[in-house]
Amino acid sequence: MRGEPDLPTPPHIVEAAERALRNGRTSYPDNRGELALREAVAVKLHRDNQLSYDPASEILITTGATFGIYAALMALLNPGDEVLLPDPIYDAYASPIRLAGGVPVRVPCPPRHQRFELSADTIEEQLTPRTRALLLNTPWNPTGTVFRADELRAIARVVVERNLWLISDEIYEAITYGDARHISPVAAVPELRPRTVLVNALSKTYSMTGWRVGYCAAPEAVTRAMLLVLQQSSRGPATFIQDAAAEALRGPQEAVARMRDEYAARRAAVLEAMAETPGCRMMEPEGGFFAMADIRALETPSDEIRRKLLEERGLVVIHGAAYGACGEGTLRVSFASGGETLREGLRRLRLGLEAIAGT
Amino acid sequence: MRGEPDLPTPPHIVEAAERALRNGRTSYPDNRGELALREAVAVKLHRDNQLSYDPASEILITTGATFGIYAALMALLNPGDEVLLPDPIYDAYASPIRLAGGVPVRVPCPPRHQRFELSADTIEEQLTPRTRALLLNTPWNPTGTVFRADELRAIARVVVERNLWLISDEIYEAITYGDARHISPVAAVPELRPRTVLVNALSKTYSMTGWRVGYCAAPEAVTRAMLLVLQQSSRGPATFIQDAAAEALRGPQEAVARMRDEYAARRAAVLEAMAETPGCRMMEPEGGFFAMADIRALETPSDEIRRKLLEERGLVVIHGAAYGACGEGTLRVSFASGGETLREGLRRLRLGLEAIAGT
Repeated sequence: MRGEPDLPTPPHIVEAAERALRNGRTSYPDNRGELALREAVAVKLHRDNQLSYDPASEILITTGATFGIYAALMALLNPGDEVLLPDPIYDAYASPIRLAGGVPVRVPCPPRHQRFELSADTIEEQLTPRTRALLLNTPWNPTGTVFRADELRAIARVVVERNLWLISDEIYEAITYGDARHISPVAAVPELRPRTVLVNALSKTYSMTGWRVGYCAAPEAVTRAMLLVLQQSSRGPATFIQDAAAEALRGPQEAVARMRDEYAARRAAVLEAMAETPGCRMMEPEGGFFAMADIRALETPSDEIRRKLLEERGLVVIHGAAYGACGEGTLRVSFASGGETLREGLRRLRLGLEAIAGT
Repeated sequence: MRGEPDLPTPPHIVEAAERALRNGRTSYPDNRGELALREAVAVKLHRDNQLSYDPASEILITTGATFGIYAALMALLNPGDEVLLPDPIYDAYASPIRLAGGVPVRVPCPPRHQRFELSADTIEEQLTPRTRALLLNTPWNPTGTVFRADELRAIARVVVERNLWLISDEIYEAITYGDARHISPVAAVPELRPRTVLVNALSKTYSMTGWRVGYCAAPEAVTRAMLLVLQQSSRGPATFIQDAAAEALRGPQEAVARMRDEYAARRAAVLEAMAETPGCRMMEPEGGFFAMADIRALETPSDEIRRKLLEERGLVVIHGAAYGACGEGTLRVSFASGGETLREGLRRLRLGLEAIAGT
């Protein structure tokens, strides 16, 4: 039950890449990203996020969100600066913080009422004179929480008052369920704009993981600093990939809605399949394609449960503690893959947990 | 007279990318690079460079040579480590050295007998206890020198005796003239193998600048360290680009010979057009697509000549001092573009230099 979507890239995007290839769009791209793609990003940020960024000076095209995060950290951190990181969170943030000379500091977020939450008070408890930035993602991988406007306002108050930077990873924005809607932190709290690096990519929204294309939006000075990092390391994505990305952002968006419906159906299947499992209570995800299973009632370390499921059922799930100490007592169930893979995975998970519960 | 080749990517490589796109090769690539491409690189290193590297553990696929250099520096350097850099050289090496925490130290290489040369003695004069690596490129951009085996042996002696690392950028390998042949330093001196990171890319050889795909070959431990840097920043090129790159390396190589012939014809045109220009003596390039014009006889700072050519003739050439102090007294003439662009550029250059010489 891995974290990679099994949906193919929509055909009109693939065709845009083929067209660009045939048209000889194979020489050096602009290091900031091709202007047409930066303009498409500006249009998208306005359309989907109610944000206004200048494509000439405030938008940078990257080889995926991973590079966006890295460039932001390299641009913002001095050696020894601390970066606040909710706990639990995606396990690939701490290493780039260290690589950029920073120190990751975890903000404990134990589940409350079957939902992982990040409180302003807990952020304040972790502040030191070296705190430089808060790294957030919403929808929050892997917890499934989608931050509400009131939550973003409370978090933003600390960020603004304490003169921090916000690095906002919004890569799962298109995948939300029920009443939950992605809100870009800068849209919720305009005071965040001069101190926020918005990071996004086309990977999840357009099933383009293998294309390696993303973007950042940030004030001019930090965008310029990130460009310096980019020029000396990855450079941008291939020219014809940038053309396809512009088509993805500006072209028909029906495939995004279809993808959301597909994930919603898988999510419902997960919740239904696991509903009556003893010792297990599913935390209903508001976004993303993971569901956290609360297995605290089994009173067994989640890593031990993970190992038993692997050895006795041939099932790969990740224990919550892999994402931080506050993830203990949970398991990450992925519905990035669907169909028979998902059905069989859920069957084994249920049987495995039943056996552990001794029923 | 810019540095970007004007030749299109050969059609069979473009078609390989289109085929891969149509076959749905759009999900996450292996972070080390797709195995098929790593194997193609191993085959190419054996075929073209008489080198043997293990695709499983000693080859890393990167988003171009720029990232290869960056990852090598990040993997090898501790803060304050010194990296030796011939002077003059490509102007985009010093910044990534600094970004990786290192200190670039220039090794003076004034022209001798109309050729830029790097002597072992001069390298030794720059050594300190903090010297960690030598960064070399052969063919040497922009000087046009292609290192001979005896030169590589002399340089290698210092590298091995002083326990340095060699970062060997071989991106212009396919573009050599007359009797000059690219020799990979590790092939000339096998003792270099455990202390060399070979960096290359498909940009120049296959006219794939905008594709952003390259590779490194290095001992297992440093390859692993470079992979850690790559995973946290750029990741690799798009999956379908890796398929096209494998086709480029393993498929028919006729296009490479045609490209070499084309550049050889342009080089001859440059040397012929400039032959009788007063105060100007062309340094015949052995490789690459730049020719250095020795204009020391004009007894005018080369930056002043560059400015005059721009203002009075609308011609862009780069003065040698832009690549390091020892480039003073030369101008970089690019034949990356050919045809009428090149002819007209050479006409203006000749007229401009004649005017400056006062003839």
